[in-house]
Formats: sequence, C-alpha cells, structure tokens
Amino acid sequence: MSLDAKALDGLDSVAALRAQFLLPEGVTYLDGNSLGALPRAVPDALDELVRRQWGEDLIASWNRHDWIGLPERVGERIAPLIGAAPGQVLCCDSISVNLFKLLAAALALRPERRKILTVQGDFPSDGYIAQGLARLLGEQRCEITAVQPIELSAALDDSVAVLLLTEVNYRTGERLPMDDLTQRAHAVGALSLWDLAHSAGALPVELDRCEVDMAVGCGYKYFNGGPGAPAFVYVNRSHHQAVEQPISGWLGHGRPFDFSAAYEAAPGILRFLAGTPPILGMVALDAALTVFDGISIQDLRRKSLALGDFFISHLQALAISSQLECVTPQEHARRGSQISLRHDEAWGISQALIERGVIVDFRAPDIVRFGFAPLYNSFADVERAAQELQGVLKEGRHLDPRFQRRPAVT
Amino acid sequence: MSLDAKALDGLDSVAALRAQFLLPEGVTYLDGNSLGALPRAVPDALDELVRRQWGEDLIASWNRHDWIGLPERVGERIAPLIGAAPGQVLCCDSISVNLFKLLAAALALRPERRKILTVQGDFPSDGYIAQGLARLLGEQRCEITAVQPIELSAALDDSVAVLLLTEVNYRTGERLPMDDLTQRAHAVGALSLWDLAHSAGALPVELDRCEVDMAVGCGYKYFNGGPGAPAFVYVNRSHHQAVEQPISGWLGHGRPFDFSAAYEAAPGILRFLAGTPPILGMVALDAALTVFDGISIQDLRRKSLALGDFFISHLQALAISSQLECVTPQEHARRGSQISLRHDEAWGISQALIERGVIVDFRAPDIVRFGFAPLYNSFADVERAAQELQGVLKEGRHLDPRFQRRPAVT
Repeated sequence: MSLDAKALDGLDSVAALRAQFLLPEGVTYLDGNSLGALPRAVPDALDELVRRQWGEDLIASWNRHDWIGLPERVGERIAPLIGAAPGQVLCCDSISVNLFKLLAAALALRPERRKILTVQGDFPSDGYIAQGLARLLGEQRCEITAVQPIELSAALDDSVAVLLLTEVNYRTGERLPMDDLTQRAHAVGALSLWDLAHSAGALPVELDRCEVDMAVGCGYKYFNGGPGAPAFVYVNRSHHQAVEQPISGWLGHGRPFDFSAAYEAAPGILRFLAGTPPILGMVALDAALTVFDGISIQDLRRKSLALGDFFISHLQALAISSQLECVTPQEHARRGSQISLRHDEAWGISQALIERGVIVDFRAPDIVRFGFAPLYNSFADVERAAQELQGVLKEGRHLDPRFQRRPAVT
Repeated sequence: MSLDAKALDGLDSVAALRAQFLLPEGVTYLDGNSLGALPRAVPDALDELVRRQWGEDLIASWNRHDWIGLPERVGERIAPLIGAAPGQVLCCDSISVNLFKLLAAALALRPERRKILTVQGDFPSDGYIAQGLARLLGEQRCEITAVQPIELSAALDDSVAVLLLTEVNYRTGERLPMDDLTQRAHAVGALSLWDLAHSAGALPVELDRCEVDMAVGCGYKYFNGGPGAPAFVYVNRSHHQAVEQPISGWLGHGRPFDFSAAYEAAPGILRFLAGTPPILGMVALDAALTVFDGISIQDLRRKSLALGDFFISHLQALAISSQLECVTPQEHARRGSQISLRHDEAWGISQALIERGVIVDFRAPDIVRFGFAPLYNSFADVERAAQELQGVLKEGRHLDPRFQRRPAVT
C-alpha cells in the first residue's frame, strides 16, 4: 500500500526547510510559482538595510555595505542554482527589460540573420518584448516566428538568429529539453535564449553544461525574493568579448564614477547593468536566497516530483480525475514543479479552493495551477489540496454565482 | 545685520518637516541630492508590506492591497509635484530604462528626423542611453549631437527630432529654462524630453504649463524613496494616442491578464509599463511621498534658495571663497538646490568634511557638492558646513596623505 502524507513528510530530507518560512496559519499555499512565500530571513535583512544602513550610514552605504556590488553578489548566489560558473550571472531589472537587452544583443551577434524563433503559448510578455524590438528595428532587421513546440525542429534552420524558449511553460507546466534544443539551435548557427521563470529554484538547470548562450529568470517565484523582486540575466562567457546590449546605462560602464562622456562597456557580464539597482528588492532577494545554502537542488527536484506524483495519485484515488484534464505531462523529464488542471469552470474552482484556504491560481481561460514549492510545501499540503478539490467539485461550490464573472485583474 | 542660523530656523515655515525624517545624531547631511534621508513613515510601511501583505495575504495582495495599481498610484502622487495633471505620470523602472523607452518613443513620433540634440556635461547615463539607442538603430535612424548649453539655440533646427535636457545639472547645479527651451524646440518641430533627477521634489517643475512632451525623474533623491527607488515617466497627454514604446512588456498591455499572444498597448500612460513592478521599492517611495502632503513646493523652493544664499554669504564672510570657485550660478532662476564648489583638492575636501560629520559628495574631477534638501536641512546645517569647510582648509586637512588617491567607486 502507498504511504500517507504524514509518512512521506517524515521521510522528506528537506522537510526542515519549511521552518525557514513565515507561512500563515491554516493556509495551504500552492502559488509559490507566482509569488514565493516570505523567508524568515527577509524582514530582519530589510530592517537592517532600512533603519541602519540607509537611515544611519546614508550615502556611505554604497561602499560601506557594498550596495554597489549587489547585482554581482546576488548574481553569484544564483549562479550555482542554475548551473553557471562564476562571472556570468547578474541580478537586475525585470525579466521583460532583461529580455529586451538579450534579444537585441543576440540579434547583434548574428547580424546576417533577423529571425527570432519561439513557441506559441509561452508567457506572453516574452513575445510582447520580441514584438516591441521587432517594431523598433523594422522587419528588415527583425521578424518573429512562433510555432508549436512539436514544430520547432522543422522551423529551426539557418535563417534563425535566436531561439527564444521558456524551459517550463507557465500554463501547462511542461518542461522542454534544454540540452537537446540548444544543440539543435547551435547546429544551424542560432543562439539559444532561455527563460527560467518557472524552473530556476525548483529544478536543476544546467546552463553551462547545455552550452546555453543566454538566459533570464525571476526573483519572486521559486527564489522567494518578494513581489516584483529583481530578475537575473545569464550570458555565457564565450560571448563576453563580442556581446553588447542597447540599454547601456551608467552602471554597465567600465568606470561609471569617472563620469566620462562616451560609453565604454564594462568587462564581462557587468555590461548588462543599466540604471541604479533597486537595493530594497535586491537585499530582500539576497536574504531569501540564503535558504538555499547547503541545499542540493537535486533533493529539491526529487521532492517536487514526489509532491506532483502524490497529487496525481490522489486525484485518481478520489476519482475526480475524469472531471479535470491534467495538462501537465506525467513523465518526470517533461514536467516542471506544478500540476495544471483544465476545466471549463477553472475560475470557479480556483476561487472556491482559495475560500477553503488552498491558495492556487487561475490562468485564462481554463487552467487551475497547483504549484509545488519544494522548499516549503509538504505532502500534507498536497493531500489537503486534493481533498478540498474533491469537496468543491462534489458540492458544486465552483458553480456559485459569485464566480460566474471573473474580474479583469486576476 | 544679517540673521543667524537660529533666527532663520525659527522663521522657517517648513522647519517642522525635519521631524518626519530619521536623521543620525551629530551628522549634517548635505547629500540628499544623491540619496534622500529616511522618512519616518517608510519602515512601518515596509513592515506592513512585508510581514502582513506578502507574509500573510501572499498572492492575493496584488488585488487586495492593490499592488497592481502602485505604478499609477505613485505616479499620481508625483504628478502635482511636477506640474502634471492626472493620467500622465507613472512610477516604474530606473531613469536609464525609462529614458530608453522615451527616446525611442520620441524618435518614432518624428519618423522623418533622426537627431537627438543634448548638452555636454549632463549626467552621463542619459548620454550613454542615447548612444545605446543610436548603436541599435544605426546612424540612418539616430544620431546624437551634444553641444554646450550656450550653443543650444544655434543647434536647434528642423533636423532635430528630440531635445534631451536635464533641468538641473548634477555637477554645477545650474538650472536650464524649461519654458524657453521647450518653446524653442517646438518652434522647429522637435520634441522636448527633460530629466528631472535634480529638480523634482526640490523646486516647482511645471511640465504641463511649459508644454513639455516627455520627462523622466528620480525616486531616491529629493523624493526620499530609498536606494535605487523606482523612477518615473511623464508623457504629455497630447501624445497618448500616437505614442508607442519598444520595451512593451505585459503590464503595458491593455488586458495583461488575458494572456493574449499579440501586444496591444494599454490606453494612455500605462503603456509605458514593462515588467512586474518592484513592489518593495514602490511602497517605500509611496510612503516617502506622504511627507509632501499639504506642502507647497513653492515654500520648499523659497527655503532651498535661502539655504543656498546663506551658504554663499557664509563662504564670503569666512573669507574662504577665494580658494574655491563657486560653479553654481548665484542667480535664483538659474540655480537648482545645491551649491557646487570647484577645487583641485575637491576629493580631499569632501573626505575631510565627511570625517567631521558633514556629509557632502565629490564629483570627478574637481567638484564638491553641497546639496540642500529643503524638507529636512536647516540653516544650522548650512552654518556648520561652512564652518567645518573653513576649518578643513585652514588646517589643511584635505591634504592628508590618506586622501591623495581616490578609490574607483565614489
């Protein structure tokens, strides 16, 4: 017979990490893939930053507390979690802004090509940013082709400058094979640019081993850096000599405090900095990342998969799987750290679950996402989610008239 | 006879505002033009944000506490302080990133022109951003001409697409006439784009009255939003129908939560949003701006000018003016909220003053800046600064061998 939640939590080698988070009583939080929970280390770090550093040391803090070094320092904390050797990762700006920098930089590295190849159905902002760059540059210098994932191989030819992909799809939770697709891109002379928003911090990403060219990722999902936390960029060392990016603000200058008139890019990854870094968000993220100290990302991945499997087995055992289509691949290699269920009343289901204290989220038009954050979610969380889901459907709570119309902002 | 510092502080109609800041004991802080001091309201606002909103309400906070509305809401708080009617200001990203958006947007509004006209000696990041855009677009679509301020009129002709200016120069404290220069730009069919980094919050800016087309500004100087606080953008309503910007991330979409594949710009100023806003920095800035509630910016300006005049009269009375060249215009209309002194040993002077508890800053190669933040600086601060400056020069403390070599990061 299969083990119950209590037994599994007892076996969980990383169960103790949950104590490093401040989680509200009585709530089962399965939305860490949208906003990570609050690490205990963060409020104290912010208090030190605000009251002592900003309040007392004021402007001297840029040197005394090395605020100026935060983008690099936080980048180096992130690097081992995404399989990057030192000197290739920087924490800065938002994913959208960073994608703009990297897409422009990638196109400039392939001046004889103009095509960005991507897939349909990825998080829209990535496509919007590509569209904005294409409008700015004109169709002679940039065009976008978006295909289904299954059509990628056929579409990858020597007209492609950059292959823009998200490792784990935000809606379906499907994981693309980074190694294979990057090799295919390289085989036709294209660069690969990966969005790690739904993978970094939840599963082992191996940027260096896969010879990925560039990547962006998120600070506020599995890294728990807080709402709107700064994002990160990765640029493979092999490109550091030649690469340049267009949002060339002063902190990406080689000697920003010389205040010289002509821009000269800083060596290496530092040239991807633009303006003054958001120190509050960066200090919060820096503190949040200490949770990963000494932790094996492989252990987190094993737990994440076990949480997902446990959820699926509960759906089957509770005989509710027939009413909901699981759109996340069950195969481990093809799955991220969430299980997504499709249902015509997905909005009502998500709202009814939230009312019962199981925080999931909805993605238009018909997806309920159950995100499993292996740092703090337990098997008991998963069991409760499955049971509440059964209760909602059985009692028809998702059909409540209050849930017939969903607001514009979800 | 002239009044002393104590008498002047007694007359100061906004003296009580100082109590709204947490200032360290024994320190005279004259660097609010680099990093504003800590408002009392900020630590509590951050505590509420982090512990209660993020920690307890988690993802629901985007709606429940209207995080999603913060860029607009903080923008509307800033708007009256820069002479902007509602619906034209947004708080987002950094000045550098925002300048990139606006310069690209301005060029697109003048498709038959390609010239960005600016002045030499403005804060370098503005020029670096223009250079990055010019490299990206190529010389057929963008070129930069930088002249001395006195040459602006001659250089303004109908080849100019956009006139990029900073209202108050970061080194000299010189203020340019926004009204006159904007009219001159319009007379030749050019757009005006103003950087308000050293004016917003310190003096009355009148964007609407001057018919300025676009502007950017800083959250962490006179607005006291904390290190790396988000910046702001202003786009005159007259351009809202036609304008588009290239960093078209999801939150600038008209219906971001529909997750549709094609970008459609949100109406009005909202289209200047890109990625997820940095909530920590934005909440800190929002709280910091409450200090301005019910305050007349004209009163702040009057005090700022009086502080500067008091400083200059002290320099003269103490007979130290001959050793230092005041590079800030003494004429009120041509002055920002700082007094900048030139000296070959400017680095040593700034360091010796800081050791004596008078926090000023140095700008390469030879400027000491005394920034007067009218919200919290007193006439006693100014008097102490002048006296310590006299002491430093008299005792030759600025020649201390420790100050012979300045570090790369200042």
